Amino acid sequence: MSKGIANVTVGQPFDDFLLIKSVTRGIASNGKPFLTLILKDHSGEIEAKLWEITKEDEEEFVQETIVKVSGEVRQFRGKNQLKIHQIRPAHAADGVKIEDFLEKSPVPVEELKEHITEAIFQMKNPNLQRIVRYLVKKYEKDLFIYPAATKNHHEYVSGLAHHIVTMLELAKKIQSIYQNLNLDLLIAGIILHDLGKLKELSGAATPNYTVEGKLLGHISIISEEIGKAAEELGIEGEEVMVLKHLVLSHHGKHEWGSPKTPQIREAEILHLIDLMDAKMNMMNRALAQTRPGDFTERIFALDNRSFYKPSYQDYESS
Amino acid sequence: MSKGIANVTVGQPFDDFLLIKSVTRGIASNGKPFLTLILKDHSGEIEAKLWEITKEDEEEFVQETIVKVSGEVRQFRGKNQLKIHQIRPAHAADGVKIEDFLEKSPVPVEELKEHITEAIFQMKNPNLQRIVRYLVKKYEKDLFIYPAATKNHHEYVSGLAHHIVTMLELAKKIQSIYQNLNLDLLIAGIILHDLGKLKELSGAATPNYTVEGKLLGHISIISEEIGKAAEELGIEGEEVMVLKHLVLSHHGKHEWGSPKTPQIREAEILHLIDLMDAKMNMMNRALAQTRPGDFTERIFALDNRSFYKPSYQDYESS
Amino acid sequence: MSKGIANVTVGQPFDDFLLIKSVTRGIASNGKPFLTLILKDHSGEIEAKLWEITKEDEEEFVQETIVKVSGEVRQFRGKNQLKIHQIRPAHAADGVKIEDFLEKSPVPVEELKEHITEAIFQMKNPNLQRIVRYLVKKYEKDLFIYPAATKNHHEYVSGLAHHIVTMLELAKKIQSIYQNLNLDLLIAGIILHDLGKLKELSGAATPNYTVEGKLLGHISIISEEIGKAAEELGIEGEEVMVLKHLVLSHHGKHEWGSPKTPQIREAEILHLIDLMDAKMNMMNRALAQTRPGDFTERIFALDNRSFYKPSYQDYESS
Amino acid sequence: MSKGIANVTVGQPFDDFLLIKSVTRGIASNGKPFLTLILKDHSGEIEAKLWEITKEDEEEFVQETIVKVSGEVRQFRGKNQLKIHQIRPAHAADGVKIEDFLEKSPVPVEELKEHITEAIFQMKNPNLQRIVRYLVKKYEKDLFIYPAATKNHHEYVSGLAHHIVTMLELAKKIQSIYQNLNLDLLIAGIILHDLGKLKELSGAATPNYTVEGKLLGHISIISEEIGKAAEELGIEGEEVMVLKHLVLSHHGKHEWGSPKTPQIREAEILHLIDLMDAKMNMMNRALAQTRPGDFTERIFALDNRSFYKPSYQDYESS
Amino acid sequence: MSKGIANVTVGQPFDDFLLIKSVTRGIASNGKPFLTLILKDHSGEIEAKLWEITKEDEEEFVQETIVKVSGEVRQFRGKNQLKIHQIRPAHAADGVKIEDFLEKSPVPVEELKEHITEAIFQMKNPNLQRIVRYLVKKYEKDLFIYPAATKNHHEYVSGLAHHIVTMLELAKKIQSIYQNLNLDLLIAGIILHDLGKLKELSGAATPNYTVEGKLLGHISIISEEIGKAAEELGIEGEEVMVLKHLVLSHHGKHEWGSPKTPQIREAEILHLIDLMDAKMNMMNRALAQTRPGDFTERIFALDNRSFYKPSYQDYESS
Amino acid sequence: MSKGIANVTVGQPFDDFLLIKSVTRGIASNGKPFLTLILKDHSGEIEAKLWEITKEDEEEFVQETIVKVSGEVRQFRGKNQLKIHQIRPAHAADGVKIEDFLEKSPVPVEELKEHITEAIFQMKNPNLQRIVRYLVKKYEKDLFIYPAATKNHHEYVSGLAHHIVTMLELAKKIQSIYQNLNLDLLIAGIILHDLGKLKELSGAATPNYTVEGKLLGHISIISEEIGKAAEELGIEGEEVMVLKHLVLSHHGKHEWGSPKTPQIREAEILHLIDLMDAKMNMMNRALAQTRPGDFTERIFALDNRSFYKPSYQDYESS
Repeated sequence: MSKGIANVTVGQPFDDFLLIKSVTRGIASNGKPFLTLILKDHSGEIEAKLWEITKEDEEEFVQETIVKVSGEVRQFRGKNQLKIHQIRPAHAADGVKIEDFLEKSPVPVEELKEHITEAIFQMKNPNLQRIVRYLVKKYEKDLFIYPAATKNHHEYVSGLAHHIVTMLELAKKIQSIYQNLNLDLLIAGIILHDLGKLKELSGAATPNYTVEGKLLGHISIISEEIGKAAEELGIEGEEVMVLKHLVLSHHGKHEWGSPKTPQIREAEILHLIDLMDAKMNMMNRALAQTRPGDFTERIFALDNRSFYKPSYQDYESS
Repeated sequence: MSKGIANVTVGQPFDDFLLIKSVTRGIASNGKPFLTLILKDHSGEIEAKLWEITKEDEEEFVQETIVKVSGEVRQFRGKNQLKIHQIRPAHAADGVKIEDFLEKSPVPVEELKEHITEAIFQMKNPNLQRIVRYLVKKYEKDLFIYPAATKNHHEYVSGLAHHIVTMLELAKKIQSIYQNLNLDLLIAGIILHDLGKLKELSGAATPNYTVEGKLLGHISIISEEIGKAAEELGIEGEEVMVLKHLVLSHHGKHEWGSPKTPQIREAEILHLIDLMDAKMNMMNRALAQTRPGDFTERIFALDNRSFYKPSYQDYESS
Repeated sequence: MSKGIANVTVGQPFDDFLLIKSVTRGIASNGKPFLTLILKDHSGEIEAKLWEITKEDEEEFVQETIVKVSGEVRQFRGKNQLKIHQIRPAHAADGVKIEDFLEKSPVPVEELKEHITEAIFQMKNPNLQRIVRYLVKKYEKDLFIYPAATKNHHEYVSGLAHHIVTMLELAKKIQSIYQNLNLDLLIAGIILHDLGKLKELSGAATPNYTVEGKLLGHISIISEEIGKAAEELGIEGEEVMVLKHLVLSHHGKHEWGSPKTPQIREAEILHLIDLMDAKMNMMNRALAQTRPGDFTERIFALDNRSFYKPSYQDYESS
Repeated sequence: MSKGIANVTVGQPFDDFLLIKSVTRGIASNGKPFLTLILKDHSGEIEAKLWEITKEDEEEFVQETIVKVSGEVRQFRGKNQLKIHQIRPAHAADGVKIEDFLEKSPVPVEELKEHITEAIFQMKNPNLQRIVRYLVKKYEKDLFIYPAATKNHHEYVSGLAHHIVTMLELAKKIQSIYQNLNLDLLIAGIILHDLGKLKELSGAATPNYTVEGKLLGHISIISEEIGKAAEELGIEGEEVMVLKHLVLSHHGKHEWGSPKTPQIREAEILHLIDLMDAKMNMMNRALAQTRPGDFTERIFALDNRSFYKPSYQDYESS
Repeated sequence: MSKGIANVTVGQPFDDFLLIKSVTRGIASNGKPFLTLILKDHSGEIEAKLWEITKEDEEEFVQETIVKVSGEVRQFRGKNQLKIHQIRPAHAADGVKIEDFLEKSPVPVEELKEHITEAIFQMKNPNLQRIVRYLVKKYEKDLFIYPAATKNHHEYVSGLAHHIVTMLELAKKIQSIYQNLNLDLLIAGIILHDLGKLKELSGAATPNYTVEGKLLGHISIISEEIGKAAEELGIEGEEVMVLKHLVLSHHGKHEWGSPKTPQIREAEILHLIDLMDAKMNMMNRALAQTRPGDFTERIFALDNRSFYKPSYQDYESS
Repeated sequence: MSKGIANVTVGQPFDDFLLIKSVTRGIASNGKPFLTLILKDHSGEIEAKLWEITKEDEEEFVQETIVKVSGEVRQFRGKNQLKIHQIRPAHAADGVKIEDFLEKSPVPVEELKEHITEAIFQMKNPNLQRIVRYLVKKYEKDLFIYPAATKNHHEYVSGLAHHIVTMLELAKKIQSIYQNLNLDLLIAGIILHDLGKLKELSGAATPNYTVEGKLLGHISIISEEIGKAAEELGIEGEEVMVLKHLVLSHHGKHEWGSPKTPQIREAEILHLIDLMDAKMNMMNRALAQTRPGDFTERIFALDNRSFYKPSYQDYESS
C-alpha cells in the first residue's frame, strides 16, 4: 500500500489512485467552469481543482468515482492542495475498489462477527436472546459495515461493530467486579443500542443523515423495532420494556437526546460504557498522531480539549 | 350538590360523603395505631385523623372508599383539618359513586366526543385519518375519562379530551390565518400527541405513573403505537414518519423530554398550541380563585410566577 | 418586473437597475483603489467590485444610490459575484425609486392601515383606546414603513405593521376560544409592543440600531412613551400600569431582554402570539424556497434548526 | 435601651415593649381561636401565641401595634418562642414609638443627607445636576427612611441612603485611581439607581412589594422618572439618555433583571460598586455575629456560601 | 449481633446498646430542659427524647458515648422515634466499642491493605512508585479507616480504601482492553486521588468538614502533598507534574470543583472510573433495600433519580 | 519614536525596524517557497509576504529577529498588509533592541517596584510579610517584565506588575471605607494571586502557555509555592491556609477555574478588585481608540459587548 495522500510532504509529486468524496462546480475568473474535488484514500483527504472542464469531465468525475491522478502537493492558505497534472477514471483493469480508500476498523470484520455471535450464544435469558438474535439477523448486512457515527468516534467502515465488540469486552470485565449487574441485559443493550443508526445514516462509505434519521433519530427507531420484534416473536415479558428503556436512556441525559434518563442500574452502566469507549476511541486516535511532549489538536466532541502525551521514559513502554 | 369540603369555614360543622384519596397508618404517642386520611370531594381535599383504630377500621377505610363523615373543620399549623366525630363506609343504598367526588372537565364528555369525531371525519388525508381513527377507537374507553396530567394542567376527569378539543379549536382558527399550515397533520398530531398518557398513568380517579410510564414515557409509547397501527393498516406513506415526528417533538426541547426538536412547521405549531392551552388552563383556574387587585398563588409549572388580576372597571366585563 | 439579481444563474448576463446597499474602499495589489459594492433589488443581493476607481466614482457610488449595471454573474469561493462591465448612477429620467428595490410586506400598506384603524375603533376601554390612538397618530409615518427587525423575521418594508396586523388576527381568534381574555388589553399591547423600534432602528430602507436603541432598547423606550402619553392625556387609571407591564414583559424572559416576566394573563398570551407570528414568518419564508422532500437552510433564530418540507401527495394541496 | 428580645436566653423572663410585625389567626385543638404574633424590637424578632382570644383582642392586636408584654422565652422545635403571661397595647403615656423597634442605618440620617447634598453640590455638569436635584427633592421624604431592599442587604431604616452614601465614597476613591471615569455621571447614577424602590416598596417599617413594583420594577420606574424630569426641566442633551442607560443596566445582566447590559464604562463601574457594597454589607453583618474560628450562617444572596472568620492573632486588630 | 435499631418495627420493644451520634438541648413546654438524641448502631439511626434532664444527664449523655437503652419504637410525623424507658452509659464491663456501631466496608480491612500494597509493589515506574509509597506510608493510619465521603457513596468505615481497591480492579481490567493506557499512572492516580480527604474530613466515626477542608479542599491539599513528597524524595521527572494533573482534574469539570479538566488520557479514565464506582456503590446499596418490581428512594447525588429493580424471573439469578 | 506600523495609512510607504513575531512557510502557486511574516512594533502588528525565498532567508528571518524593512502598506481582503520592497536583519550597529518593539506598562517599572516594595514594607503581620517577601524575591526577575495574560487585559511588558500595583491602590482606598477589611491579607493576596503566571506562561515577549501551565494552572502552582515557602520559613500559623484560600478562590467561581469559591471576606473582595482592574484596563484601552459618539469594537472577554463613548460636552473634560 502506498503511504497515502495525507503523508506526502509539500512540494512532493504524487501518482496514485484516489476516491472522489465530493465535487463542487464553480466558474473561474476567466468565465470558465471548474471543479473542486475532495479526494481521499485510507490515509486522509486533500482538495484539488480541475480547471477549464468539459461537459464530459463533469459527467465522469462524480462522487464515489475512483480516479488515477498524478500531480504535486502544494500549500494554499495554510492547507495542502493537490495540483493536478493528469487525471482519469479508474478502469476495471486497474483492479481497485472503493473499500481500499476508506478507513477501516482495526479489528477484522470476521473477528467482530465472531465476538457478537458468541456473546449472543452465551446469553441465558431466552426472551432477550431471541430479540437480539432476530434484530442482528435482520440487519446483519449493514451492521458489519456501517460506521458508528458520521464523525467524532468510530467513524470508519465496521466502526459500529467495532464499538459494540469493545463495549461487550468492557461489560464482561466490569460485571466480573460488580457481580449483581445482569450481564444478559447489558449484552442485549450493548448490541442493540445504536442499531437504529443503520436507518439513521445513509450508508457505510460516505454516510449522511437520512430524513428518517433527522426526524425520528436512531434511539426511537430501534426502540420501536424492539417492540415489533417482540410482537413478532410472541414475547411479552417485562424484559421487552426493560430493554427498550436501556436503549431510550443510553445517551444519559435529556440534553443529549435521550427521552428518558437511566432508571435501571444496567442502563446507567450501559451509558457509562458507551461514553468510555467513544472517548477512548477519540483520544487514542488523536494521540497516535502526536509526539511525546506535544498536545493533540483540540477534539470538539471532548469539550474542545486537547490532550497531552507525556514524554517521560516509561510512559510509552509500560 | 353540597358546597363541598373546601368551602367549609374553620369552626363549622360538616356532615356529608367524602372519598378516601389516601390512607397512612401511624402509632400515636399513647402507643395506639391511628390513620391519617386524605378525604376529597369535587371541591378539594382535607386531612383527617382516625384515632385508636381497630383491625376492622383498617380493612374498611382504604383508598377509593366513599365514607359518610360528620365532624368539624379545624385549623392545625396553618392548614385545615377535619375533626371526625362519626365515620362509616357508604352503603349501596346511599346512591353515591366515585365520579361524584372528582373534579371534571367543564365541557361534558358527550360534547368532547362529538368534537373529536367530527375533527376526524373532516380529515382529507386517508392515511392520517385511518391511523387516528384506529388509535382513538383502540383507546376510546380511557381517552374520555383520563386527565391530561397528574398535576399542573387539565388534571381532572376527561382532562385529556378537554385539552385535545381546545387545541383542535385553536388549530382550526390559527390555520385560517396561516393557510399553508396543513390542517390534517395538525389534527392528527393534536389528537394523538398525549395518547401515550393512557399507558403512562394508572387511571382516571387517582392517577399515578406506571412503571411503563416512568421507564418509557408517553412520547415513545405513542410513537411506537403509531408505527404498529400503520403496519396493521398496511399504510406506508411518508405521513407515518411525519406524524411520529410531530409526536416525538411536541415537548419542543430535549430538556423537556423530547428526543427530537420540531423540524416540521406543523410540529413547531403543535408544540406552541400545546403550550398555550396548558398555560391558559393553569392561569384561568388560578385567576378564578383570585379577587381583582390581588395576585394568584405562585404557579410552579409557570416558572413559579404569580399572576395579577387587574381591578380597573372594564377588565372583567369586556 | 425583472426576475431579479438573486435569480440570475452563474454565467448569465445581467443588465438592470440595482440599489447600493453598502460600499467599502480597498487598495488592489497593483496599488490602485477599488470599491466593493453590495447591490440589491427586491429579490436579494450580490457583491461586485469596481476596479481602478476615480475620485468621482467614489463620490457618485455611495450608499442608497440607484445604479444601472450591465455585467455577468460569476462564482467566487462558493458565492455569486457580479462582474461589472458598465455602471452609471440612475437619472431622474429612469423613473426608478428606492422602494422598488426593497422587499415589501405581502399585504398592501393600505390594508394594514385599515386593519389597525379598525382594531382601535372597536376598543371599548376609553383609556386604552386613547393612549393607543395617540401613539399611533404620533408615529403614523414610520409605523407603516418600518420593518419589525433588522433581520430574522418581518425584516422588510412595512414589516412591523404586517406583524401587528397578523398578531391582531390571532388575538381575536384566540380570544373567541378563551373568552375571559380581555381583548382590549390584547389589542393595545399588540399595537404598541414594538413601537419603540421606530426609535431603536435608524430607518426603513437600510435599518441599523441607533445609539438610543442600543443604550435604552425599544422596550424601555415605548414603556416611557406610554407613561408620557397618559400624562399628556390626563389618564390615571390602572390601565396605564397594566399596559406598560404588557410591553415590558413581552419578550417573556429576562434572558431575552424583558425587565419583567409576564404576570398578567394577557401579557403571557401577548408573548406567545408574538413568538408564534415571528416563528411562522421565518418558517414560511424559508420553506417557500425549499422543494418538497428537502430541508431549509438552518435558521439561526430558531435555535439553528432546519425544517423539512414533507413530500407526500396531500401535503401542499390540503 | 434593653438588650432586646433576640438576646434573652431560653428560660429567662422578658418584660418590655415589642412591635407586632404580623398576626395570623388560627383555631386551637379545643376549637377556640388564637393568634400567632411575630413580635420585634431593634434586636430581632420572636414568635408568640395568644390563646383563647376575644373579639376585642383581635381588634387590638393588629400589625404595627406596639405592645407591652411580660412572659418567658421557651424553645419549640429548635426555635425560640415567647410564652406570654401578660400583654396590652402601649398607651400614649408609655412614650414609645415605632422607630424605636426597627433596625436603623449605623450612620445617622443627618449625616447621610449631608453627604448626598454635598455630592450633588460638587457636580459640574448642570444637566445631570439639575435632574438629580429635582428627583432627590421630589422623593426627599422617603429617600431618607426607606431600606435598600426587603431583605439581603441594607434592609433597615435609611438603608437606601446608607447604601447610596457608601457607594458615593467608593466612587470618589476609585475615580481618583481611574481618572478618566466621569465622576459626575457616576454620582448621578449612584444617587438615582435605586430611587425607583421608593415606589417599588410599600414603606419603610414593614416593606412589601407594591403592585406597581411587581409589574414594572424599580428599574423601569426610575428610568421613566428621569425622562419626565428632563422634559419638565427642558433638558435635552445626550446626558439624559446616558443617565437612563446607567439606571437600566445597573443590575449588570439580563438574568438579574436589567433590560440592557452595561455599554458605557461608568455603567459597568456603577454595577460593580453596587455589587461590592451590597456584598460587604451582607458579609460584615453576618461576620459581626460570628466568633473567630467559626463560619457564618449560609448567606442565600451570596450563592448560599458561609464565610470563615480567621482566628489568627492579627486578623481583627489590624 | 442484634438485628439493629433500623429493623425494629413500630410498636416493638428495644433493649440494647446504641451510640450517641449527636445531642441537642431544648426547653419543653413545661419549662424543663430536655435532650434530643440521635442514636445509632450498625443498622441505621433513630431519634429519641430524654425529658426533664438533670445537670448530670447533660454531662453523661454526650456525642460518641455508648449507651444502654430500653424502650419502644413509636412513629411521630411519619418518622420512627425511640421512646426511652431506661438509659445509662455503657461500662467498661459491657465490652462494647465504638467500631461496633458504625457501618463498615463489606471487604475486610486486611484484604484492602493487601490489595493496595500489591498494586504499589507491581508498579514499574520508580518515581511514581516511590511517591505513592511515601504518601501511603505517611497517611497509613487514617487511610484504612476513613470513609470516602460524609454522605452519598462509600460513607462508612474504611470506605475510602474500599473505593480505592475497587477502582484499582476496574483500572486493571479496563487497561487489559485499552492496552496503551499507562497502568502505573492509573494506579498512582487512583491511590492518591482522594487522599486529601484525610485532611478534609475530621475523622472516621462522625466525619465533618474541617476548616482546612472547606477553605482548600482535598484536591489542592493532596496536589501540594505530592509536590512536597517529590521534593523530599529528590524526584524531578515529568511524572510529578503528570500525577498532580491527574489529581487536580479528577472531578472532570470546573463546575465539580476541579481547577483543570482532564488533558491526559489517563486523567480522563481516572475520572470515569471514579464516577463509575461511586455510582455503582450508590445504586447497589439503594437497590439492596428495594424489592423486585419497585423503585428505590430518590438518590440526590444521582440527579435525584430513583432506580427500578426489574421483576422478571432471570434478573436476580443471572 | 516613529509613529508605528499600525498608524501608516493604506497606500503610504514605510521604512523602519520591525520585530518578527511569527513566521510560516508556504509554497506559492509557481511552486516556489515563501514566508508569511507577522511583523510588530510598539504600535501594533502587520502581515507581510516574502516571496521566492532562499535557504538563507529561511535561516535569517526567524521569530524574535529584528528586521529593517522598506515597503508600502496595502489592503488585502479588508486587512492591511505590508508589501516588502527591501528587508534585512538588524545589525548590532543599528542599536535597536527587542524591548523597543513591545507594548509596555504605562507606569515605569521602577515605579512599580517601588510600590510593591513599599506595600510589603507596610505590612504588620510578620508571617504574611515574610511569605510575600520570600516569593517576590524568588521571582523578582520575571515579576517585573511578564504580562498579566496572553491577551484580553494587561497583555504587555510589566503588565502583571502594573495590574498588581493598581489593585494595591484600589485595596488601600476601599479598605479606608470598609475598615474591618484586613489590609495585610488583601496586600498579600493581591501580590501573590497571579504569581503562578510566571510559570504558566513561557516568557514576556511572545508569551505562550507552558505544559505546566496547561496541566496545573497558575492557581494551583502558586498555592503550592506558598505552602513550600511557609515550610521553608518555618511558618505554621493559620495565615498560611487563609492566604492559600485567597489565591485558590480568586477567580470567584468554579466555572472560572477556581477550585474553591471565596469563603473569607477578603477573598471575595480580592476577586472583585481583580475583576474591576481587568475590566477597566480593557475598557480604557478600547475607548482610547474610539471617537466620542462611537462604539468600541466588541470586547470578547467582556461578554462580547461594545462600549459607547458619550459625546456630550463635559464628558471628556470632567
